[in-house]
Amino acid sequence: MKAKIETIVLAADLAGTCVFAVEGAIAAMKSGLDLFGVMVVSFAVALGGGVIRDLLIGAAPPNAVRDWRYPALALVTGLLTFVSQAGGVHDLSTPWITVFDAAGLSLFAVAGTQKAINYGIGSFVAALMGIVTGVGGGVVRDILLNRVPVVLQTDIYASAAFVGGIIVVIGRRSGWPPMATALCGGAACFVLRMIAVHYNWQLPRVSA
Amino acid sequence: MKAKIETIVLAADLAGTCVFAVEGAIAAMKSGLDLFGVMVVSFAVALGGGVIRDLLIGAAPPNAVRDWRYPALALVTGLLTFVSQAGGVHDLSTPWITVFDAAGLSLFAVAGTQKAINYGIGSFVAALMGIVTGVGGGVVRDILLNRVPVVLQTDIYASAAFVGGIIVVIGRRSGWPPMATALCGGAACFVLRMIAVHYNWQLPRVSA
Amino acid sequence: MKAKIETIVLAADLAGTCVFAVEGAIAAMKSGLDLFGVMVVSFAVALGGGVIRDLLIGAAPPNAVRDWRYPALALVTGLLTFVSQAGGVHDLSTPWITVFDAAGLSLFAVAGTQKAINYGIGSFVAALMGIVTGVGGGVVRDILLNRVPVVLQTDIYASAAFVGGIIVVIGRRSGWPPMATALCGGAACFVLRMIAVHYNWQLPRVSA
Repeated sequence: MKAKIETIVLAADLAGTCVFAVEGAIAAMKSGLDLFGVMVVSFAVALGGGVIRDLLIGAAPPNAVRDWRYPALALVTGLLTFVSQAGGVHDLSTPWITVFDAAGLSLFAVAGTQKAINYGIGSFVAALMGIVTGVGGGVVRDILLNRVPVVLQTDIYASAAFVGGIIVVIGRRSGWPPMATALCGGAACFVLRMIAVHYNWQLPRVSA
Repeated sequence: MKAKIETIVLAADLAGTCVFAVEGAIAAMKSGLDLFGVMVVSFAVALGGGVIRDLLIGAAPPNAVRDWRYPALALVTGLLTFVSQAGGVHDLSTPWITVFDAAGLSLFAVAGTQKAINYGIGSFVAALMGIVTGVGGGVVRDILLNRVPVVLQTDIYASAAFVGGIIVVIGRRSGWPPMATALCGGAACFVLRMIAVHYNWQLPRVSA
Repeated sequence: MKAKIETIVLAADLAGTCVFAVEGAIAAMKSGLDLFGVMVVSFAVALGGGVIRDLLIGAAPPNAVRDWRYPALALVTGLLTFVSQAGGVHDLSTPWITVFDAAGLSLFAVAGTQKAINYGIGSFVAALMGIVTGVGGGVVRDILLNRVPVVLQTDIYASAAFVGGIIVVIGRRSGWPPMATALCGGAACFVLRMIAVHYNWQLPRVSA
């Protein structure tokens, strides 16, 4: 049972890494980067959030440095995306990309919060680390592509990650079973994100 | 007496964090970010310098991750600033903001140098860590807002932090009382910064 | 013999730091930064790659913080470059700059890979750390100067560093003498880079 759960978690983690790597590769190609640039941005989007979280919680070297499978997966995914788009970048902004992205966000938010708790970080900051894990890669992507990070400007995205992280914190404090805690947190993040996309919910903004 | 000094230092630290968080929130609102973006930039300006310093001197997890009061204070300050400006961003570039900012810079430069020394960093690099603590948050803000960091282009700002850090290093090496060392370093940074603002002193620049 | 090798390595390391610091100072002056900005970018280009590598492999505090000679050398080099260009920035894009830069890249790629291996990082990621050491400083420079990192867009540069790193990994695994391993890796990176410059080789790119 334990082994089965670990297999599920590992599979989900690798799937999330792939989704984010594909999105990074597409963004890099749209910005006209060369193959190396595409692979760097794939790596950054897929693993950047986790790397920043690991440095912040004192878990150096980060998982993406310690375990070669993560960078290898991100880089191969970036390479395959590049090759598959050799005839010109297709528009991948289909509903499916949004669904997969929301799943990746949920997974990263939950896993990031849990890892922070495991490293002795307090509840509130642990939920913040869920946000960092979920959105950090996209922030690094936008810094590299020389634009203001999208997540700072629009959409209910980081907020959904925070809700997922808070639920994980509550579940851990209340002694819920680990798998149930993770599923509740992930589902809350995913559902909130999808509803926000559907109704185009936005956070408030002050007109300058 | 010891407890009283620690209370003063903590109060000053929290006050500096607030000032920088307000400045971050204003800058973010002027750039049109949403509420999440405003809180991220508040956090970055208030705590970014200290986080970078802690990672560089080997003090992970950084103070802002270890002690929830710092991120909570920065985020609540950002939120309150956002709410208070709901009718449109007021121009806060009054003389008072400059004075408070210089006070925050002085405090961060002194505290950053002292922490670096406490972690066994050599004198010269410890004074550099005072600069990092004082200006790091503003650099992160400008990177997120997609512009060349202001501190790299204009004003006697980092230089004032460096002078404060150097005085702290000299005081520690010469066995001055800790409180006197901190006050001398902070005062030197503050006075130099205010004089530089008043006379519009600038560092040299090479015309390209 | 051991002492002599260490002297050679130290001399090469300091020489590479100088070359990169000069390049950083020139780029900063061309962007109109003031003296502080020039010294920050000199520091960033010369030492940024090594700092990021050290944080990623768990070698905090990074070498540039632990040993004051490195930041002092980078900052003095930046200062001297600034002073020497006081009459206006000369165009330094001579063939010599390209040769020295390729030498610096080779050195950093080899040294970075070796340090990562010494810290127990696996072979593949260690070679990636060679890339990080070689190109990280330039990426930080471009982020500070608010442009898309050049290395992500053009030229065989990071790829040459990767080839050098891979050869170091193979040499270490195969039990080659350390000096021969370093020389082979460095020579491969240097030659590949120079050939790529000569024939203007580029990585593939997908037209958006």
